[in-house]
Amino acid sequence: MKDIRENPGENRIEGRNAVLEAFRSGRPIDKIFVLDGCQDGPVRTIVREAKKTDAIINFVSKDRLDAISETGSHQGVIAVAAVYEYAGVGDILSAAQKAGEQPFVFILDGIEDPHNLGAIIRTANLSGAHGVIIRAHRSALLTPTVMKASAGALNYTPVAKVTNIAQTIRELKKQGLWFVCAAADGEVMYKMNLTGPIGLVIGNEGEGVSRLVREECDMTAAIPMSGDIDSLNASVAAGVLAFEIVRQKKFT
Amino acid sequence: MKDIRENPGENRIEGRNAVLEAFRSGRPIDKIFVLDGCQDGPVRTIVREAKKTDAIINFVSKDRLDAISETGSHQGVIAVAAVYEYAGVGDILSAAQKAGEQPFVFILDGIEDPHNLGAIIRTANLSGAHGVIIRAHRSALLTPTVMKASAGALNYTPVAKVTNIAQTIRELKKQGLWFVCAAADGEVMYKMNLTGPIGLVIGNEGEGVSRLVREECDMTAAIPMSGDIDSLNASVAAGVLAFEIVRQKKFT
Repeated sequence: MKDIRENPGENRIEGRNAVLEAFRSGRPIDKIFVLDGCQDGPVRTIVREAKKTDAIINFVSKDRLDAISETGSHQGVIAVAAVYEYAGVGDILSAAQKAGEQPFVFILDGIEDPHNLGAIIRTANLSGAHGVIIRAHRSALLTPTVMKASAGALNYTPVAKVTNIAQTIRELKKQGLWFVCAAADGEVMYKMNLTGPIGLVIGNEGEGVSRLVREECDMTAAIPMSGDIDSLNASVAAGVLAFEIVRQKKFT
Repeated sequence: MKDIRENPGENRIEGRNAVLEAFRSGRPIDKIFVLDGCQDGPVRTIVREAKKTDAIINFVSKDRLDAISETGSHQGVIAVAAVYEYAGVGDILSAAQKAGEQPFVFILDGIEDPHNLGAIIRTANLSGAHGVIIRAHRSALLTPTVMKASAGALNYTPVAKVTNIAQTIRELKKQGLWFVCAAADGEVMYKMNLTGPIGLVIGNEGEGVSRLVREECDMTAAIPMSGDIDSLNASVAAGVLAFEIVRQKKFT
């Protein structure tokens, strides 16, 4: 058998929920690897879903699964999907237009932890954002770990990758978007107007939003914090800000 | 051999990464249980690390490991560390009293992912909560991974461990607390009154709040979600709800 490691560009999806969600969303799956002899319900459901498609089903040993696994927690199932197609920034705006909604976009200025990136894509999906823009360099990219952490949201929410976040913001401003960046020294978010076509800018886990990107933003929003430590987890902060935007858009 | 179940206060660390991390962080480990005959690299590395310390190494069968395991995903290795000094529930109420504030407590009904647990303790600290109550069984406990994910918040925010969450809620209700649990079928949180002495109940990542615990809660709050997938990451959901409580307490 050709070793999967020869194809580092292949997109592995690991874990039962992530694989099942991928099939259910209609995402093209090339093949799956299933733990030989595993008979429990979720795995049987996955095999049944796989048989409805043209995916190749390989029953393999635990050792082989462990060798293929990138995350180390495959739960007995690994799928190999067509390489993820990044969206373009224009696709995200089109999605907003198609929905008849004002654009709501997440801009991630260097999220490095794949669990955080996955959780943020999940939040983007559920807060009604039309897409996520990430940085090509010094950033987590779309790996199986991200897919799993996104709980399938990556199948629905377009993610665009750009080389220069500041320049992307300048271009989107010409199309009418406003940008709010998250920083502890900003204005308390509850006192700001976060409605309208908006880009929410979240910075790197350690360093926050970079200076050049921050200079392009129209507003700086802070989550009002008590307590003893410095900052929230980046995906938690993104969630708190995103749902403040939801509150202002829909519940005021 | 004395059964480990006789010592429920012992701190078990389960899974290869968590155990290895515990050794590498210099945390005192009393003993480890390793799957007999398991020869793969990560397990051999753990045994090598263990031999550098005075930890007792027990090679045991898969059935025995499964019996010892609290999380159900031990990956062939379970370590028992020196016990973390958990706070008592009373300590949390005292902290509120000392601060001259109405109690604000997080109740975690079975958060299993240590990264989530750490991120939630971090959120509890920064949202001004007085402490976190976790479940003794089928729950992540206070491992080095949790400490790391808490970004140091574990040094400030007391964490109590209880065997029966429902009973703890009943007792705290007698002391004047109200309890709100998070569930998708609840009332939209923006329309609820979340002020006063409050306990915020967050459920397990997959199953949500258990029925018995939910029946003890006074209210069920929902984060209003758009999108295609089922639920937010548990630590993100906890953050969004916690800061809605902050908004209602301090900014309305």
